[in-house]
Amino acid sequence: MTRLWDKGAPLDERVLRYTAGDDHALDNRLVAYDVRASIAHAEMLNARGLLSADDLVAIRDGLNAIAAEHAQGQWQVLLEHEDGQTALESLLTARIGEAGKRVHLGRSRNDQVLTALRLYLRDAIDELEARTTAAAEALDDLAKREGDLALPGYTHMQQAMPSSVALWAGGFATELRDDAAGLAQVKRRVQKSPLGSAAGYGSPNLPIDREETRKRLEFAVIHEPVTAVQLSRGKAEAQLLFEIALVMQDVGRLASDLMLFYTQEFSFVELPDAFTTGSSIMPQKRNPDVFELIRGRTATAQACLLEVMGIVAKLPSGYQRDLQLIKVPLFRGIDVCLDTLAILPAALAGVRFRRDRIHLDPSIHAAAEANELVVKEGIPFREAYRRVGEKLKKK
Amino acid sequence: MTRLWDKGAPLDERVLRYTAGDDHALDNRLVAYDVRASIAHAEMLNARGLLSADDLVAIRDGLNAIAAEHAQGQWQVLLEHEDGQTALESLLTARIGEAGKRVHLGRSRNDQVLTALRLYLRDAIDELEARTTAAAEALDDLAKREGDLALPGYTHMQQAMPSSVALWAGGFATELRDDAAGLAQVKRRVQKSPLGSAAGYGSPNLPIDREETRKRLEFAVIHEPVTAVQLSRGKAEAQLLFEIALVMQDVGRLASDLMLFYTQEFSFVELPDAFTTGSSIMPQKRNPDVFELIRGRTATAQACLLEVMGIVAKLPSGYQRDLQLIKVPLFRGIDVCLDTLAILPAALAGVRFRRDRIHLDPSIHAAAEANELVVKEGIPFREAYRRVGEKLKKK
Amino acid sequence: MTRLWDKGAPLDERVLRYTAGDDHALDNRLVAYDVRASIAHAEMLNARGLLSADDLVAIRDGLNAIAAEHAQGQWQVLLEHEDGQTALESLLTARIGEAGKRVHLGRSRNDQVLTALRLYLRDAIDELEARTTAAAEALDDLAKREGDLALPGYTHMQQAMPSSVALWAGGFATELRDDAAGLAQVKRRVQKSPLGSAAGYGSPNLPIDREETRKRLEFAVIHEPVTAVQLSRGKAEAQLLFEIALVMQDVGRLASDLMLFYTQEFSFVELPDAFTTGSSIMPQKRNPDVFELIRGRTATAQACLLEVMGIVAKLPSGYQRDLQLIKVPLFRGIDVCLDTLAILPAALAGVRFRRDRIHLDPSIHAAAEANELVVKEGIPFREAYRRVGEKLKKK
Amino acid sequence: MTRLWDKGAPLDERVLRYTAGDDHALDNRLVAYDVRASIAHAEMLNARGLLSADDLVAIRDGLNAIAAEHAQGQWQVLLEHEDGQTALESLLTARIGEAGKRVHLGRSRNDQVLTALRLYLRDAIDELEARTTAAAEALDDLAKREGDLALPGYTHMQQAMPSSVALWAGGFATELRDDAAGLAQVKRRVQKSPLGSAAGYGSPNLPIDREETRKRLEFAVIHEPVTAVQLSRGKAEAQLLFEIALVMQDVGRLASDLMLFYTQEFSFVELPDAFTTGSSIMPQKRNPDVFELIRGRTATAQACLLEVMGIVAKLPSGYQRDLQLIKVPLFRGIDVCLDTLAILPAALAGVRFRRDRIHLDPSIHAAAEANELVVKEGIPFREAYRRVGEKLKKK
Repeated sequence: MTRLWDKGAPLDERVLRYTAGDDHALDNRLVAYDVRASIAHAEMLNARGLLSADDLVAIRDGLNAIAAEHAQGQWQVLLEHEDGQTALESLLTARIGEAGKRVHLGRSRNDQVLTALRLYLRDAIDELEARTTAAAEALDDLAKREGDLALPGYTHMQQAMPSSVALWAGGFATELRDDAAGLAQVKRRVQKSPLGSAAGYGSPNLPIDREETRKRLEFAVIHEPVTAVQLSRGKAEAQLLFEIALVMQDVGRLASDLMLFYTQEFSFVELPDAFTTGSSIMPQKRNPDVFELIRGRTATAQACLLEVMGIVAKLPSGYQRDLQLIKVPLFRGIDVCLDTLAILPAALAGVRFRRDRIHLDPSIHAAAEANELVVKEGIPFREAYRRVGEKLKKK
Repeated sequence: MTRLWDKGAPLDERVLRYTAGDDHALDNRLVAYDVRASIAHAEMLNARGLLSADDLVAIRDGLNAIAAEHAQGQWQVLLEHEDGQTALESLLTARIGEAGKRVHLGRSRNDQVLTALRLYLRDAIDELEARTTAAAEALDDLAKREGDLALPGYTHMQQAMPSSVALWAGGFATELRDDAAGLAQVKRRVQKSPLGSAAGYGSPNLPIDREETRKRLEFAVIHEPVTAVQLSRGKAEAQLLFEIALVMQDVGRLASDLMLFYTQEFSFVELPDAFTTGSSIMPQKRNPDVFELIRGRTATAQACLLEVMGIVAKLPSGYQRDLQLIKVPLFRGIDVCLDTLAILPAALAGVRFRRDRIHLDPSIHAAAEANELVVKEGIPFREAYRRVGEKLKKK
Repeated sequence: MTRLWDKGAPLDERVLRYTAGDDHALDNRLVAYDVRASIAHAEMLNARGLLSADDLVAIRDGLNAIAAEHAQGQWQVLLEHEDGQTALESLLTARIGEAGKRVHLGRSRNDQVLTALRLYLRDAIDELEARTTAAAEALDDLAKREGDLALPGYTHMQQAMPSSVALWAGGFATELRDDAAGLAQVKRRVQKSPLGSAAGYGSPNLPIDREETRKRLEFAVIHEPVTAVQLSRGKAEAQLLFEIALVMQDVGRLASDLMLFYTQEFSFVELPDAFTTGSSIMPQKRNPDVFELIRGRTATAQACLLEVMGIVAKLPSGYQRDLQLIKVPLFRGIDVCLDTLAILPAALAGVRFRRDRIHLDPSIHAAAEANELVVKEGIPFREAYRRVGEKLKKK
Repeated sequence: MTRLWDKGAPLDERVLRYTAGDDHALDNRLVAYDVRASIAHAEMLNARGLLSADDLVAIRDGLNAIAAEHAQGQWQVLLEHEDGQTALESLLTARIGEAGKRVHLGRSRNDQVLTALRLYLRDAIDELEARTTAAAEALDDLAKREGDLALPGYTHMQQAMPSSVALWAGGFATELRDDAAGLAQVKRRVQKSPLGSAAGYGSPNLPIDREETRKRLEFAVIHEPVTAVQLSRGKAEAQLLFEIALVMQDVGRLASDLMLFYTQEFSFVELPDAFTTGSSIMPQKRNPDVFELIRGRTATAQACLLEVMGIVAKLPSGYQRDLQLIKVPLFRGIDVCLDTLAILPAALAGVRFRRDRIHLDPSIHAAAEANELVVKEGIPFREAYRRVGEKLKKK
């Protein structure tokens, strides 16, 4: 990572480092998914008479054992493996011999890695959705606890009309549920089975059964024709990052509100001690660092989205190595969002509104007064608006 | 627009120009939608006893007449109107008198403009979806015309495996249909009725019936609580621009392929004369300008998306004037995509693949040969791969 | 612009509209610069014996007259001209006959348009720099007027240490001067003469004198070799937009501060009436719209930068039509910044800090107390920090 | 990093992880710079009578020893240190006792970390500049080796005019030198001494001498007033990332050209074996992965720039914790560029143009023919253009 000034490494190693990047580290989160997809592929090969029953058993047992060992931390994908796919194939071959070399029939790393990625994304989406909903529920709880408390409603950052803690929290809760529904929509693009498209042009001469693997992996449809698969790289990924960016936008705005409310001048809220930190030279300070970092990470999520779209833009069709770079911003964006959502409900649980300090400016009722004039006197709204405005000016 | 160096204008006019921006011009496309929403609002006011039957008739007739005149180009929203909402209210009041001042009861420009915008977006999405599908159909036609022609399939921009015009066009057609489905998904966020949320805090003291206007405007649900409405500004808009960016990404990559195929070195395709242009100093040139501009506009679509997300990021809750700026990139992104999709099918109709010039390198069958070795000799794929590789090296 | 649903236009016109885009409108701001560059080119052709003295006189007089008429609004570049270069050539030929067809010798639209653009950018940079400095001076004036007034200094949006209006305004003034210096640096990339590079490969067989035109147009250096010229497209433009984005970032943050200070809860400032606007339903409201729009336009500037970088990214070398699209975000970014800077000094002139409402929390002196303990008692800072912290807790 | 689904950690640890992020890992590259700045600060304190000579010696020796041990890999900044500044202070105090607690007088982590960062950036810029120049020199070498070879010059990806390897390589070399000059310009913003601004409001009651530390650390100017320092966070960083993005844009476009030239259809170049990689299922393939990844990383550089600008946008003045997030995209962007530039010269050294395969279309001389007609027959260029065009059509 900090290989800043080094130049001495031999050329081959430098090329490997430049091409592999951090793939080996990133691929660790795909190992279990790759194993599942590889077993489904092997089962299909067996059903089609391309792999013996004995070999299938050896492959399945071998891969399951390798996955279990990985889950227990007994091995990691390393730079010398280059990527997770190569690591699995060589570990399997070392363990079960020649049969291990038979798995790669009728597939390519191109469809293999994408299959593992989509299986992973399916789980990641579930987790993101669950945590977004949990954040909405933490706002529901806040509304239950303190919802009746009157709060100024702002437009243009100016007191505008009467609101309440319930309305304030409820607006964010609704929008977070909207984000959760947005995340769920991403599944449409994730649920297309790439397996069997091989390098993007299928497997001439082989009776590959794409429906069989689709079913085993519980994808909704086969992604076809085969040429569509590599064209689609980055699309589901970008949509997920887009929806993540909306989640971060919403929680970032929630953080903006809370930091405003937490200023000495507003003093509308107290924040839980565990979520504020001290200063290195000002002993009196309790800073809302967690909320600042939530706000700041809005930008991180947007940058991850832009990076993926920038990688794919303008590329000729067919697999291009550039596409491998998608994993970095994809995983980074997912992690930023998951980490933020893991912190937020606990933070919200400790927020206390300060009934003693919240003050509604009397003029905040002007619109309601104008409405009442309309109802009572039957004058047009514009006339009522004018009258209330003049009354306020005189004060 | 090119008010570059002027400084002499009076302050009020400069402030108006800075705050109104191009809103008046932009709002012209919302006039018809605003009229529809205003009538629905007036009907609800009448049903709730807040507007007399006579006034309702006057308002409905007045607004419909104004909309018809606008559609015929008899008036335009101007800078002095500031925005479309103000233009409509003053035209209506000039025409029908006091009743015109009664429409704005129980709503604010904040929910009014958003309602018109969502009605517009509903239509824009339909049109974008239809044109994206039409582009996919143009690719279907191409596949029907010349689909059987063999084409090299590329990975890493290198000949990799045998493909065909049908597979090439079919991949793009599938992905464009995927984009159309993505566009359709945006409706979920558009189909929430904002009307009745007023400035974001509802209308105290008035028996506003949000369900009534929702039904009349055929929205799927009421957007509630009222505080959620302004929080959601920019979310549907960004999702639409995101899906537009994917459409542009896909057609931009199609353009990249065609420009590659159109080089003298490839000479795989002829492009229709109407879609190529000459050079100011090289009389021999026929340049693929339309395809270059399609590729280039990928970046425009991404920038529109980024602009909307950047506008909304970090804003405290409640309406902020910044949100008005969303319309510029939103309409720009929609227009870029619609214009591109309007050109593309005609361009594709004229593409001819040159059977005489397309050449598949013999080594392109290497993977198929390896597959055959596996099937015939029962050796592992890795072994077959090795043998074919060595045979090729010897040549 | 709003040609949303039309489909009926004949193909040629649709292709022209798609390829020309808004070029004709945009090119109006380049006419005077193009005329200047064309005359310099003609003079060089004459000096090299490629153009007669009579023809030169006719061309010079003709172009100057055309430019004067354009400046007086007697003609505009229109869509049927396609672009400004074509407009000038056809107007000139209509006016002076055959000599008008001799100007384009030894140049291409590629170097012609870039030369005009760089001459324009040189002036635009001067104007941007002057206005940025004027904004800094408006802050100096504010500091002179009210600088001695104590203000809380914030970190993490919390009162941290004592500050003053002078320090607050002075920080922004310094950074705006830094931005002005950044704008000036962009000249390095603008001041390279592209003229004579023609389509990007020079003019074989012609004794073009690039040094002669460079001198006449006051460029610092010749941009060479010729192939570098088109490779550089978008680089000066992007650097200018980057520096514009920093200006907008700084004034956007200034706006954020003022909007915070303008909340009822802070009430630190009054804003001038001309710079606040009313609400359509809340008669009491005075909203800081100008400052909201300054903040919001931060995002516009960033989007313009991203669009230019996205257009150029990954393009093979040599002129590509995509590059024409740079003008839209370039001019848009320049205008947004110029318009903002034209408004800001007048707005700052009206800002009044409210001595009666600004309140410094007593704990704001804690760091100073700790410092005093160190100086007086010679204890380590960390020990002093601890003691002051404990004293504050007891309160 | 892959702490994807874990939830079990205690709250304090989760908050620490969320707020500290990867700071500890990132701060390792700042340790040496922080030590240098801390010693300069201590020397200033001593000169001002705020630190005894004995304490200064202890601090200087202690910090130097700690830095030496860090350089030898004997310790690393860890998560429990939170950040590099805290790590240094606690290691120093553990080693030399109470004197270690005296260093932080008159400074804050806010100016401390920024000082270290700017010292680091100064070195990073030098290294980036040197490597960019080295890449230009590798192109000079290529031009020397094969420069006389004729190459088609392209516009619109079409053969346009005669060019050569010298012109092709020379264009890129010139632009890389322009990028190196752009990188050097960033120093203006880096060379401002932040030390002494403390938390952004100076040190009341202490006779801090900012000129003394400026001189010792070889900054060009003092950054003042103190409030400007935190306002400037992200500006030098963004400018550096902007210039990095231009470097990546230029080398990405170089890669685009080489990948085009490397297609079987062009076959203009051979690429060195060490820089191409094989396929997992197509034994014949030699893919230009290094160049694909250079192209792809264009997007990474742009995303890093956008992230920094997005983090800073709209923030109220004064230090905000969000600013800490700048380090991630900053270091990432620097590393991507340095790694790419470390690979590129070696790759270019192995590029061979294939004299046997490069073919110039005869029509490529059309512009030259038109020029000759003008010179020989004295006809206007437009007339000569028309005649050559007609001659070509007849063929």
